[in-house]
Amino acid sequence: MSREICVYLEFLEPHHIEKIAAVAAAGGMTARFFGKGDGEAAMACARQAEVIYSTSRRPLTCAEQVKWFCSATAGVDDICAQPGLLPAGCQLTNSNVFGLTIAEHTVMVALMLLRRMPEYEQWVRGRIWRGGLPIRSIHGLEVVMVGTGQIGRCIADRFHALGAAKVTGVNRSGRPAEGFDETLPVFRLDEILPRAEMVILAVPSTEQTAHLLSRERIAMLRPDALVINVGRGTAVDQQAITEALNEGRIAGAALDVTTPEPLPEDDPLWTAKNLILTPHVSGNCTLAYTRDLNVELFCGDLENYTAGRPLAHLVDLSRGY
Amino acid sequence: MSREICVYLEFLEPHHIEKIAAVAAAGGMTARFFGKGDGEAAMACARQAEVIYSTSRRPLTCAEQVKWFCSATAGVDDICAQPGLLPAGCQLTNSNVFGLTIAEHTVMVALMLLRRMPEYEQWVRGRIWRGGLPIRSIHGLEVVMVGTGQIGRCIADRFHALGAAKVTGVNRSGRPAEGFDETLPVFRLDEILPRAEMVILAVPSTEQTAHLLSRERIAMLRPDALVINVGRGTAVDQQAITEALNEGRIAGAALDVTTPEPLPEDDPLWTAKNLILTPHVSGNCTLAYTRDLNVELFCGDLENYTAGRPLAHLVDLSRGY
Repeated sequence: MSREICVYLEFLEPHHIEKIAAVAAAGGMTARFFGKGDGEAAMACARQAEVIYSTSRRPLTCAEQVKWFCSATAGVDDICAQPGLLPAGCQLTNSNVFGLTIAEHTVMVALMLLRRMPEYEQWVRGRIWRGGLPIRSIHGLEVVMVGTGQIGRCIADRFHALGAAKVTGVNRSGRPAEGFDETLPVFRLDEILPRAEMVILAVPSTEQTAHLLSRERIAMLRPDALVINVGRGTAVDQQAITEALNEGRIAGAALDVTTPEPLPEDDPLWTAKNLILTPHVSGNCTLAYTRDLNVELFCGDLENYTAGRPLAHLVDLSRGY
Repeated sequence: MSREICVYLEFLEPHHIEKIAAVAAAGGMTARFFGKGDGEAAMACARQAEVIYSTSRRPLTCAEQVKWFCSATAGVDDICAQPGLLPAGCQLTNSNVFGLTIAEHTVMVALMLLRRMPEYEQWVRGRIWRGGLPIRSIHGLEVVMVGTGQIGRCIADRFHALGAAKVTGVNRSGRPAEGFDETLPVFRLDEILPRAEMVILAVPSTEQTAHLLSRERIAMLRPDALVINVGRGTAVDQQAITEALNEGRIAGAALDVTTPEPLPEDDPLWTAKNLILTPHVSGNCTLAYTRDLNVELFCGDLENYTAGRPLAHLVDLSRGY
């Protein structure tokens, strides 16, 4: 019986299939491909597959012989939170390929907040032609970037390219991260929040990051502070930020992630003042570049796997990312 | 009688006044400052001033001895269009200081169009949490930039910094312009429009630029083409682009300038599909950086003026910019 790879993805194009098939064959394995509507066939294949590459977690519930599960997403908090979902001895990798698309989203909403677009858009919807609001620029801006992984780094690169004066990275240990002007450990967050012009969050959902931007920390922010969250909704105290926005205690926010998702229809966040709300689209996989990179990273690790080398994108299950 | 400079500006801060006063004094002149509400006093001063530095054109209507009028705006089409407004022998300079703020506006609306924000924002206003629209990126994008002056250059720099694949500049003569991958003369526009992904216009209002993006040229565009205008409303056939948007013949547009301004309340442009409309705010003077640079450029030319050197920012009255 051949060693099988179950590839169950909604975004595959012919050139992706060709590439994965070739790398699999070179390593003595056979890849089988399933897309939208192929759920049942994919589960049958997953049952006896050695490797699974999927956005969906469903194949894990029927896999009996899987040795490596490659998640096509960056976040794997849901897998880490369900002990037993990943069979004993199965390696888990994730796909850190969302940096570019999330960074472009972040630049977009940062400029929208700095340039007062929530207010201008409201006027324009009312057919009011009125200018003159004081605006700010990324040029010369000082940014606090919480999360210095691939996403934080891509964001920092773009802010530097657009002339930001300083990007301070914040991570668990404060270990220096490339691309940042300085890196601080998360326990020093309270020192820098009171003078931050813009706080961007791109952290995974873990016990440590839950309500990282708590009610107390939101209360520390300057009245002209802007908050952007492109990681996981759990990182922000949503009720507290809704209140701070509506009371004008901060100048604006852009949230691409919420708790829960989808946001319930009666949630007060929908109508918060100076908020740019987007339905978890900053890091979706509709960008050709992101899809290609997703497949490229999997193929790199598939070469490692078939050669008996360690996988490059292994998740540390104890940390959750 | 001392040689006087009439400075009539709404945005002056103490450090601006200090700087202008010092440069004037060093050149043997006296600067007098007028702001909002000082109209009458400013006109009295303008009457016998040798130099006038102003956003408003009103001082020109009473100036009797002015030798140099520095417009705090980039566009001076209105002055060039009124023969006699500028006294014979009076030099005219403009303020090319809006590149940074207009370029940030352009990056913002470019990303909003590429990432389908007009549609997402409409859903979010209806409390619909829905993702998955195919999006595009500045990374790898090919851009046609009509206008290769200071504004076009600042825009090209930012698109390059964000990974654009190619920025083709278009100007009158096709003379190579720094910052562009290639520069074409405007008469070759029809060759490149049919394959352009994004067309950005930043040209002054002149006879030559009127309806530069005509109905015929709009009809040449790809169905996925995006159009951005941050120059003057006259450059685009507004009725034709409204129709193209509503009929889905182009994918989207962002217009910061219209004809006329303010846009009349019953204009069909207000509700055009996939349009980001802003009330001529891309290049306003509310950004500290823009204000500082405005004063800095004037002071540089004031040093030239008092030393008897040619002014650096002279407008060619026959061209209109």
